[in-house]
Amino acid sequence: MGTRPRSRWLVSLGGRAMQRAAALVRRGCCPRPPGPWGRSQSSAAAEASAVLKVRPERSRRERILTLESMNPQVKAVEYAVRGPIVLKAGEIELELQRAPELDLLGIKKPFTEVIRANIGDAHAMGQQPITFLRQVMALCTYPNLLDSPSFPEDAKKRARRILQACGGNSLGSYSASQGVNCIREDVAAYITRRDGGVPADPDNIYLTTGASDGISTILKILVSGGGKSRTGVMIPIPQYPLYSAVISELDAIQVNYYLDEDNCWALNVNELRRALWEAKEHCNPKVLCIINPGNPTGQVQNRKCIEDVIHFAWEEKLFLLADEVYQDNVYSPDCKFQSFKKVLYEMGPEYSSNVELASFHSTSKGYMGECGYRGGYMEVINLHPEIKGQLVKLLSVRLCPPVSGQAAMDIVVNPPVPGEESFEQFSREKESVLGNLAKKAKLTEDMFNQVPGIHCNPLQGAMYAFPRIFIPAKALEAAQAHKMAPDMFYCMKLLEETGICVVPGSGFGQKEGTHHFRMTILPPVEKLKTVLQKVKDFHIKFLEKYA
Amino acid sequence: MGTRPRSRWLVSLGGRAMQRAAALVRRGCCPRPPGPWGRSQSSAAAEASAVLKVRPERSRRERILTLESMNPQVKAVEYAVRGPIVLKAGEIELELQRAPELDLLGIKKPFTEVIRANIGDAHAMGQQPITFLRQVMALCTYPNLLDSPSFPEDAKKRARRILQACGGNSLGSYSASQGVNCIREDVAAYITRRDGGVPADPDNIYLTTGASDGISTILKILVSGGGKSRTGVMIPIPQYPLYSAVISELDAIQVNYYLDEDNCWALNVNELRRALWEAKEHCNPKVLCIINPGNPTGQVQNRKCIEDVIHFAWEEKLFLLADEVYQDNVYSPDCKFQSFKKVLYEMGPEYSSNVELASFHSTSKGYMGECGYRGGYMEVINLHPEIKGQLVKLLSVRLCPPVSGQAAMDIVVNPPVPGEESFEQFSREKESVLGNLAKKAKLTEDMFNQVPGIHCNPLQGAMYAFPRIFIPAKALEAAQAHKMAPDMFYCMKLLEETGICVVPGSGFGQKEGTHHFRMTILPPVEKLKTVLQKVKDFHIKFLEKYA
Repeated sequence: MGTRPRSRWLVSLGGRAMQRAAALVRRGCCPRPPGPWGRSQSSAAAEASAVLKVRPERSRRERILTLESMNPQVKAVEYAVRGPIVLKAGEIELELQRAPELDLLGIKKPFTEVIRANIGDAHAMGQQPITFLRQVMALCTYPNLLDSPSFPEDAKKRARRILQACGGNSLGSYSASQGVNCIREDVAAYITRRDGGVPADPDNIYLTTGASDGISTILKILVSGGGKSRTGVMIPIPQYPLYSAVISELDAIQVNYYLDEDNCWALNVNELRRALWEAKEHCNPKVLCIINPGNPTGQVQNRKCIEDVIHFAWEEKLFLLADEVYQDNVYSPDCKFQSFKKVLYEMGPEYSSNVELASFHSTSKGYMGECGYRGGYMEVINLHPEIKGQLVKLLSVRLCPPVSGQAAMDIVVNPPVPGEESFEQFSREKESVLGNLAKKAKLTEDMFNQVPGIHCNPLQGAMYAFPRIFIPAKALEAAQAHKMAPDMFYCMKLLEETGICVVPGSGFGQKEGTHHFRMTILPPVEKLKTVLQKVKDFHIKFLEKYA
Repeated sequence: MGTRPRSRWLVSLGGRAMQRAAALVRRGCCPRPPGPWGRSQSSAAAEASAVLKVRPERSRRERILTLESMNPQVKAVEYAVRGPIVLKAGEIELELQRAPELDLLGIKKPFTEVIRANIGDAHAMGQQPITFLRQVMALCTYPNLLDSPSFPEDAKKRARRILQACGGNSLGSYSASQGVNCIREDVAAYITRRDGGVPADPDNIYLTTGASDGISTILKILVSGGGKSRTGVMIPIPQYPLYSAVISELDAIQVNYYLDEDNCWALNVNELRRALWEAKEHCNPKVLCIINPGNPTGQVQNRKCIEDVIHFAWEEKLFLLADEVYQDNVYSPDCKFQSFKKVLYEMGPEYSSNVELASFHSTSKGYMGECGYRGGYMEVINLHPEIKGQLVKLLSVRLCPPVSGQAAMDIVVNPPVPGEESFEQFSREKESVLGNLAKKAKLTEDMFNQVPGIHCNPLQGAMYAFPRIFIPAKALEAAQAHKMAPDMFYCMKLLEETGICVVPGSGFGQKEGTHHFRMTILPPVEKLKTVLQKVKDFHIKFLEKYA
């Protein structure tokens, strides 16, 4: 057993000094090295330091947890949506707060605010919460309000129903690991309505902490094997980087299939087949992930495409993951969201009783944009009963998804209906958000396509533009000199010169030699126009500079 | 490319039958095999089936995701707190709902309700939410209420502060991955107060989805290596099974150290040393987990014990995890909660600048019992700056912890103070919960120790009793015949005969040859008395039966 440093340190003091030091130590005022805590070091501690007049030799030992010793799979994780560009945006925001000081120094930013167009965060961009949803949530949170005449009866009815299904009638109780029963029933009823009568079973519904939680949970169960039999997970390129991150965490094999930019980012089954067969050389591709409507690409798959994908999954024995969180976000008049579940059933029993499917939805997107509540659900089809048991077991380790998020999900799937008091206001608010998004989708496409060197596919759905940008040779060289991907270089310059924060295409994946960025269309119309104009001006200047 | 089953199936029909079938298929009414969805099969679907008069041969193919093909590490996960006994409890509850039918058949349960004493779920056991907490939460949820005269000003002040720190002033926005800034500041201020002035830095605070999320996240980063250099994680036995579950998921090595039941479940450093040196034979022990106050054991570590553990971690270069979620739940008058962080600092700079520590807290326990909101925080000490970057990156993949849970955490760390309008009511409610828990802790210990064949250590803290039970040889044989652990057999019998649901000691780990169960002390006093009396009666009968 080693000698204790404190003993060694205190025994060098005698008598009263020792006693006083010990007392200070007991009061939590031992001298501390300068460091991150130094700035809040109390005066008592400073006094102790003076009294003791000794300071043991401090040599910071090598740490246990370092970049070298940490989990290499976690180290390999990348997540561009909140990556370096967003950290830089945070720094700039801090600088802007210090603007008056900087003004005195003659340093002035050419903009007054950072516009975070990097993430689909509707409320942060000024979208107002849906009144009815928040009324029900408030009633669930503080049931005394159930007696208040200022809340509508239909909201109270829903709140009572949710609370009755919670232990002790409180959102503060744990729910079942799979989620509150009556909310799962409401989700199943919603899916049945949405899919024109194709039935959904509450037993197949798992409430989740946002869609991300469901996706990573099911992938966690799916991944197995080593070497050439390691599970391969097919994902679209461009993809939403949750997929690559989770694949990395799980040490699974990422199998890329490319969406066809020249064809409005359509998914082509021949490309799926190419990717699959190439992957079979080095892994065991077992999972096919689909994002529809697409993120970041915004395409909406048509019926034939979905049928082709399902047939392919059936034929090649692939487990299907359908990320359908943008199901309410379809803007092109000639596009319509159709769920994989519905098409699967309509393709007949050979598919509907064999193809294993998990599909995902969330409270974060759509017209409600309730990201912060982390609500979501997963529906599984044809999951082996034993695996359902395993899934519940795995979920139970984290106890349950946030019950407030579950309640938010309930209101999304069980909104006011005609004849109910809140129907009119709810519908107005919902249509207003979706109508504005549709306008902004068109506006963004049109404005980008007016800029030389930018091409933008139609934003059929979701809430992002993913325009292709031309980066001149000299800019490519400059990027290389800065050890940056060319589109990261571009986006950093855009951020520094305009305050607009977007995510480089390299964070989502793109065909080699092409460059893109992802930008949300969430800012209010007038602000979005300004943003687009600024991007345009920046781009033209950028082309000139690196011509 | 394979032939498509649907084509094959539909082409066998001609003319109008084909058209009608196709139309039904489009309407989502294709004939479906009987199965879990069969019961909600619509009459239209039945009609389609009749029209078609063909049913393709259905042979369920082998599934992709099975017990054999799934992730073996997930398969290995066990989580007793929501394990088979809880599933059984759910079945019995369903039976009780059908009681009138069963009565007619002459089948009658000897009880009318299942008492879920398996999980620390305070509100589910009738504990009322803290009014102030819910008022602030309601105000944050539905800010129109900020104009209502029925909410106190101090609650409004806190709600405004939280909302101002949220994007778009909405709980519906994503927060920073690490959590809302001002809430992290409040957590740091709380820790500083709690630890008698030892400073805490908001940069070291990470808000989490309950404590479980923090624990599994930091373990995920820590685990690395293969074979004999695979990371070993030292955990107490008995433990809270989140630890063993996460270790299993991560394919890390569980290193057990035994708490000393004969000494009130104290932690003994010699036992730590034994466990460590034995583990070094086959893995790389790198992490030491401490649960204080103990779960399921309820012991509260004294100053000397904590110092010994910290010195041991320093000496052996172990990363310390301190699970301190029961920090408000200390009942024995001669016990006091002291945080590992505080003791670490008071032991002097050699420790405070070298020992790497992560400690955890939660909204789920204490006096508030807000489990459903999934709020929590983690404080890290001496984490390498690069690792802090990795941590934020990893957390950012899941975007953020539920913002409503973060708000709940804020109120826990920033409660009303003397002079504020709500202080009196808040204090009364808090003291009432904690006072009752202290009474129930004593009551439970006393009553268990009156039963022959049950021994219960003092419940110094937390919210569970973990009594040792004597199981006679004949019962051991009966358990073996049922292929059950003896204490699982005991707890199943207890559940079936009394409706009381507790968790077998084998789910937490225990010294071989000893048997225990974990029971919460959360039911209201009178109900708890009944529960304890029932356990007593059951136990005596059990001893007689298997004498």
